[in-house]
Amino acid sequence: MIVLLKRDPEEKQLQNLLDWLRSLSLDVHISKGTNYTVLGLVGDTSTIDMELIQALDIVENVKRIQEPFKSCNRKFHPDDTVIELGGKPLGGGQFQIIAGPCSVESESQIVEVAHAVKAAGAVALRGGAFKPRSSPYSFQGLRDEGIRLLLLAKKASGLPVVTEIMDISQLPLFEEVDVIQVGARNMQNFELLKALGREKKPILLKRGLSSTIEEFLMSAEYIMASGNEEVILCERGIRTFETQTRNTLDLSAVPVLKKLTHLPVIIDPSHATGYAELVPSMSLAAAAAGADGLIVEVHNNPACALCDGMQSLTPETFARLAPQAKQVSALVREGGLL
Amino acid sequence: MIVLLKRDPEEKQLQNLLDWLRSLSLDVHISKGTNYTVLGLVGDTSTIDMELIQALDIVENVKRIQEPFKSCNRKFHPDDTVIELGGKPLGGGQFQIIAGPCSVESESQIVEVAHAVKAAGAVALRGGAFKPRSSPYSFQGLRDEGIRLLLLAKKASGLPVVTEIMDISQLPLFEEVDVIQVGARNMQNFELLKALGREKKPILLKRGLSSTIEEFLMSAEYIMASGNEEVILCERGIRTFETQTRNTLDLSAVPVLKKLTHLPVIIDPSHATGYAELVPSMSLAAAAAGADGLIVEVHNNPACALCDGMQSLTPETFARLAPQAKQVSALVREGGLL
Amino acid sequence: MIVLLKRDPEEKQLQNLLDWLRSLSLDVHISKGTNYTVLGLVGDTSTIDMELIQALDIVENVKRIQEPFKSCNRKFHPDDTVIELGGKPLGGGQFQIIAGPCSVESESQIVEVAHAVKAAGAVALRGGAFKPRSSPYSFQGLRDEGIRLLLLAKKASGLPVVTEIMDISQLPLFEEVDVIQVGARNMQNFELLKALGREKKPILLKRGLSSTIEEFLMSAEYIMASGNEEVILCERGIRTFETQTRNTLDLSAVPVLKKLTHLPVIIDPSHATGYAELVPSMSLAAAAAGADGLIVEVHNNPACALCDGMQSLTPETFARLAPQAKQVSALVREGGLL
Amino acid sequence: MIVLLKRDPEEKQLQNLLDWLRSLSLDVHISKGTNYTVLGLVGDTSTIDMELIQALDIVENVKRIQEPFKSCNRKFHPDDTVIELGGKPLGGGQFQIIAGPCSVESESQIVEVAHAVKAAGAVALRGGAFKPRSSPYSFQGLRDEGIRLLLLAKKASGLPVVTEIMDISQLPLFEEVDVIQVGARNMQNFELLKALGREKKPILLKRGLSSTIEEFLMSAEYIMASGNEEVILCERGIRTFETQTRNTLDLSAVPVLKKLTHLPVIIDPSHATGYAELVPSMSLAAAAAGADGLIVEVHNNPACALCDGMQSLTPETFARLAPQAKQVSALVREGGLL
Repeated sequence: MIVLLKRDPEEKQLQNLLDWLRSLSLDVHISKGTNYTVLGLVGDTSTIDMELIQALDIVENVKRIQEPFKSCNRKFHPDDTVIELGGKPLGGGQFQIIAGPCSVESESQIVEVAHAVKAAGAVALRGGAFKPRSSPYSFQGLRDEGIRLLLLAKKASGLPVVTEIMDISQLPLFEEVDVIQVGARNMQNFELLKALGREKKPILLKRGLSSTIEEFLMSAEYIMASGNEEVILCERGIRTFETQTRNTLDLSAVPVLKKLTHLPVIIDPSHATGYAELVPSMSLAAAAAGADGLIVEVHNNPACALCDGMQSLTPETFARLAPQAKQVSALVREGGLL
Repeated sequence: MIVLLKRDPEEKQLQNLLDWLRSLSLDVHISKGTNYTVLGLVGDTSTIDMELIQALDIVENVKRIQEPFKSCNRKFHPDDTVIELGGKPLGGGQFQIIAGPCSVESESQIVEVAHAVKAAGAVALRGGAFKPRSSPYSFQGLRDEGIRLLLLAKKASGLPVVTEIMDISQLPLFEEVDVIQVGARNMQNFELLKALGREKKPILLKRGLSSTIEEFLMSAEYIMASGNEEVILCERGIRTFETQTRNTLDLSAVPVLKKLTHLPVIIDPSHATGYAELVPSMSLAAAAAGADGLIVEVHNNPACALCDGMQSLTPETFARLAPQAKQVSALVREGGLL
Repeated sequence: MIVLLKRDPEEKQLQNLLDWLRSLSLDVHISKGTNYTVLGLVGDTSTIDMELIQALDIVENVKRIQEPFKSCNRKFHPDDTVIELGGKPLGGGQFQIIAGPCSVESESQIVEVAHAVKAAGAVALRGGAFKPRSSPYSFQGLRDEGIRLLLLAKKASGLPVVTEIMDISQLPLFEEVDVIQVGARNMQNFELLKALGREKKPILLKRGLSSTIEEFLMSAEYIMASGNEEVILCERGIRTFETQTRNTLDLSAVPVLKKLTHLPVIIDPSHATGYAELVPSMSLAAAAAGADGLIVEVHNNPACALCDGMQSLTPETFARLAPQAKQVSALVREGGLL
Repeated sequence: MIVLLKRDPEEKQLQNLLDWLRSLSLDVHISKGTNYTVLGLVGDTSTIDMELIQALDIVENVKRIQEPFKSCNRKFHPDDTVIELGGKPLGGGQFQIIAGPCSVESESQIVEVAHAVKAAGAVALRGGAFKPRSSPYSFQGLRDEGIRLLLLAKKASGLPVVTEIMDISQLPLFEEVDVIQVGARNMQNFELLKALGREKKPILLKRGLSSTIEEFLMSAEYIMASGNEEVILCERGIRTFETQTRNTLDLSAVPVLKKLTHLPVIIDPSHATGYAELVPSMSLAAAAAGADGLIVEVHNNPACALCDGMQSLTPETFARLAPQAKQVSALVREGGLL
């Protein structure tokens, strides 16, 4: 960490700062220029509250050199983390697809989709039971009953299941859930992250709509610092001024994350774009960018005319897309440039 | 609600849609043009899931006419909601200031600040016990102990207290807290909002970093739909590309909110800007924009050299600022243009 | 175009509006509901100034159904526009790469890079002579001399050249330039766009940093409405809150643009990301997303230690990347899902 | 400028960098830590191309200490620049208002508005002759004829006039124009800025829709570096995700700019918000934030039903607003906190 002091810092304040820094077991190198004094802090600065230093009267600016995250940092853990999903490896060069409907609606729906996505090559089934909706008047999911149906589909298909938690109090219902998803709106629900850090199963952490990549990794760090190292990072679009898509998929987050962290990185093209017609191209692009996998919405809808055309793919389109995405992933990995 | 259908909609799908809409007790007016068919839905459309309709194959676009919020909508409740804080009215032309430190640090600190801000004209004391921090390694607040100290300061000063909740499970600790704050990161923690809707005390709801004004109001609606009508809205800066300030204070949200809702609207210039030196101008601007009040960070720091210069004002600056802000508020209200 | 009127519009104002709309040769269908009156405008509404209508006292909202662009609209011109670059087709299923240095620096530099990128499969040479720089104290390009050197490289390599214009007055220097580039900062320099609309050569139009896709197409429309139909659209990153990349590459713009317009769409991964190490993954992702090509920075730098490591690829990396990108493009086109 | 080198920089590359830096007359202080080497550059670094250094293989990060702007920097010119508008001072504690219609439409219109805004206290008349419009099919302004009418209004009212230039080639028409406006879309039209730097009259420079404050000041620097020191900075809203207002007015830019530069700072509440009903509150807020003035749209519209309700104020509302804004400005200046 580099601390730039203002011109002619008040001597007593400077001494206070130096004493405090040294009390944190940091070595402090002082370099005085004509106009500025620079402090170089050596040691474990990841736990230092940068804002506290920035806030000091005598400080012009603070610049981290070391990243503020440790457990998820590739520098301290060069090898890719590989997470097993139903016996299949995600990460470390293995591209996998999670698929299923946005919401669990009925037993027949979720079981049917489970069979369909398994047949097309998905390694896990997604399906929402607790649905975060911006309006209190919108459908909030089947909740407990949704979890029950999802577990029926797990049993019927043999696929592990991924579903979203919205509050710590729901945790007992997730006992047989294989992967717990934290939604974008809860990415900085720190109490929830800490609680999930005490679980013994993978956490699929979605990036917040307006969260920086660093904040995203800090949220993964919350989970890992509490003891759970199985975190799957999921980019799902960020909020920008563009309105042609629901959000703007930030695919450059893939190579940036792969450089900064050893955790697997997957893409959710369905929520990112909001339109089924954009999902195939963004799925293929995600594979080409070096992502470790996808989480895609797939819906069968014989009965429900109201679900046509959403951001969900039909099982038929998904059955064509899944192998193509894997082929693209294999091709770029062979290419050796990523 | 206006639904634009695609050219030549498939007849069976159209009939499905019409049947479903009518099953929701809506009148449907069909207007056929040469190129497009437009459906006008009349009735209570606020509880309709617009995305479901948007998702239909035959639908080109859906446009709400009625806002999707009801309880907080000024159209259905033209008079300003006034919320009492320690016997003082907030809203309805009454400008009030809440002040206090970012974090509760010690009994002497919080009691001293309480006396100082009261003397300067604040009607309530703020102070954080549970602190949402992006890093798990940063100070997370004094938590239970922080609440205890805050309540001591309440007793000592007579000021009602405002403090942030981070999870439903903390609710029992908030029994004697006068106003419960929901932080920006939890603005769409819908389970928490529902739980707070069952409380009998005012909720200070902060706008999320990248939440639209409509989403902000929908979150207020979650609280109100669960039974608690005392919601104070707080704009505290949105995330943009600009880096000279921590966030970008969206002051035009004040007149927009005052038009759309009857709830009181206050401004947090401290978190919005991130720098104490910008707080006075943004406080005065907020008053001039027609806000109903401010929530400002004020810190006394004899003991703690490390807290100098943060986004907190000194009690001295606050004592000069508070009356000026009230004067500006009074001046613009007299002017009669807002 | 759909115009929603406010409840109980003032009769005289309504008549004024109807008269004016009819004077524009539009058919107006009036549909009165209990609460709202809706006007449906039929005819060529692309030339109507929507803001003028929106501004009326009696108007609640205006919604376009027809897009506001015509010449570049795929609805009126379903077939892909194909633009020839040195005898090679860009667009219509043909993936092509333009490459070269950010700035023309010397004859040997530009000629050498030209030979290198040609050998690797590029169909055109890019190189900046006029450089838009945010600081007046930064290198502004070799200007006239840069154009001269670029044309030498064209002659030596046989590659057509692409270079940026910054002002109409520079146009005479661009006589032998094959493709004129309009930079992101000039995307809404409408006088320049009109002047380029009178040229008889392809225009490579870059999307502005904070321009919506619709604004981007409207700028293409400016060129086309002035007579030049050869416009190549280039997405090069938009401005967001994320700081790990220079800008955020909006790859979903590719399928959105391909749907809305018949013009070719290429990607500039170098400016979008700002880091050479991110260019390969974003190039491959662009190909997988269905882009028609790339414009990539490539720099040889034996002499200039200062240019190492920029957003430019080395000729060696480019020689590996170019065929891989084409392979990915071919693979996804065969897949038939885009 | 502080340059952080990567761990173990290649010796030859380091020597190249040091030689180059010294060739620019900079003193280089080298400070070696265990993990990182830091170079401190002392001298005039404002003309150094930071990106070139950042681009080097051996460089981890570059951090400016000195701002990259000089002529507009308050550090080198502590006193407020005051610009005369028709004999009235703008800046240096003097709050002034520029007002007039968006577009010049006719002689009677512009002359009438001129008289009205003068009577209400405006010191200059604004009116657009060349109008940047996102659609080529929208009204582009009266152009040459608009300038002629504006000059008639100048003569009739005695008010100096402000109008926008869109291209260097229009400059001869601006001979009698008192203040030349550069619109948001042209803020980084660097050739235009250089040309205006050779003029001998004030330039009103609008902030780009997605320009940072630093980029805004660099554009002012372009004008000043070319010889014209009379630049008025105008914040007019930035592009964000919020859609309730046309743009998001960034009022915190006022105190930030007042700290960084000595140039006068004014606010355009009309374009920022896009709705007349939001203009009064944002005008008063701008005054309270410490702005040096306003530029407000005012339109008389007896004849033109189509202009009702736009972002323009009526002369009557303006006549009430102008004195209130001045009163607020005076009040906060007396307060002494800004």
